Amino acid sequence: MAPSTRPPGRPRSSVDAEVFAATLATIHELGYTRATVDRIAAATGIAKTTIYRRWPSKGALVTACLVDTFGPLPPAGRDRAQDLAAAIRFGARRIAEPGVAAAFSGVFTDAIGDPELREILSTQLQDPYRKVLIESLGLSEQRVLFFIDVVIGTLLHRMGMTGEPMVESDVEALIVMLQRELEGWLP
Amino acid sequence: MAPSTRPPGRPRSSVDAEVFAATLATIHELGYTRATVDRIAAATGIAKTTIYRRWPSKGALVTACLVDTFGPLPPAGRDRAQDLAAAIRFGARRIAEPGVAAAFSGVFTDAIGDPELREILSTQLQDPYRKVLIESLGLSEQRVLFFIDVVIGTLLHRMGMTGEPMVESDVEALIVMLQRELEGWLP
Repeated sequence: MAPSTRPPGRPRSSVDAEVFAATLATIHELGYTRATVDRIAAATGIAKTTIYRRWPSKGALVTACLVDTFGPLPPAGRDRAQDLAAAIRFGARRIAEPGVAAAFSGVFTDAIGDPELREILSTQLQDPYRKVLIESLGLSEQRVLFFIDVVIGTLLHRMGMTGEPMVESDVEALIVMLQRELEGWLP
Repeated sequence: MAPSTRPPGRPRSSVDAEVFAATLATIHELGYTRATVDRIAAATGIAKTTIYRRWPSKGALVTACLVDTFGPLPPAGRDRAQDLAAAIRFGARRIAEPGVAAAFSGVFTDAIGDPELREILSTQLQDPYRKVLIESLGLSEQRVLFFIDVVIGTLLHRMGMTGEPMVESDVEALIVMLQRELEGWLP
């Protein structure tokens, strides 16, 4: 048997990191629609079949990539208003990173008509934040989901309309508005 | 010369109405990405070249379709808080119509990386509302753009995450939050 010329398999975490970086870079360069799994695979040199073994669809791949990019919220402190402000600034910083807003809007757009993708988005991307925020803000689930809609929706709409992240002064206005809202909803 | 067998040309407004209806129906059925101009043309029986003569790209077509679907805001009354509430309920009703949220999110997603489409979106879809709202709410342009981001972004995020329009009680919470905000920003 001829010796294999393939390099030894890359460990899983390294493949994930490579694919996620290529996913955001490709979406940033070509837009969500044209960033196909084919092109993402080509950008990494990793086989398309390997990618589909890990993530069954482009929507699942982009969701996993967003989960990885966002990472955990800043640790909660002792002041709910400050925790809320930190969470909003955290969201604004992440959405400003290259490719993130287009990835996020794209996967939402696909999810509107795709119940399976909505399930993936909701359980893998939204649920961890939902749980942490119910705990740290002391709000009901309905209120936390409303806050997430307002923060993420507003930041993404601004990116879509201007191509630029929301300016600092508007992020601060968003924080003040939701801090006032938080006070009003606390038991 | 042989008599033409083609029916007399349909008037422009009728073609527009047919194409817009087919655009929303196709997006509703297939999602934004798979609703190509080819498929929209096939659904109407109108030649693709005719469609491209009127709208140079899918993004331009979808924007024109959204402008037509949304139509003018409810007339302003004498109470700014009520005008704001009416504008938010108007947005929520429109975004709940079949195909509208997916069309809207899709065109935003494409616009993030496409300056030409952002220009079309901003001048054709957003500007008329921006102007009317600056007048009727008595807010600065920066505040009105912020309000538009919050209202439309929140409603679209909810559709993407749940596949359903925002429930009445959350729309009312959005109204109350922004009415409080409006009071705070008035000179």
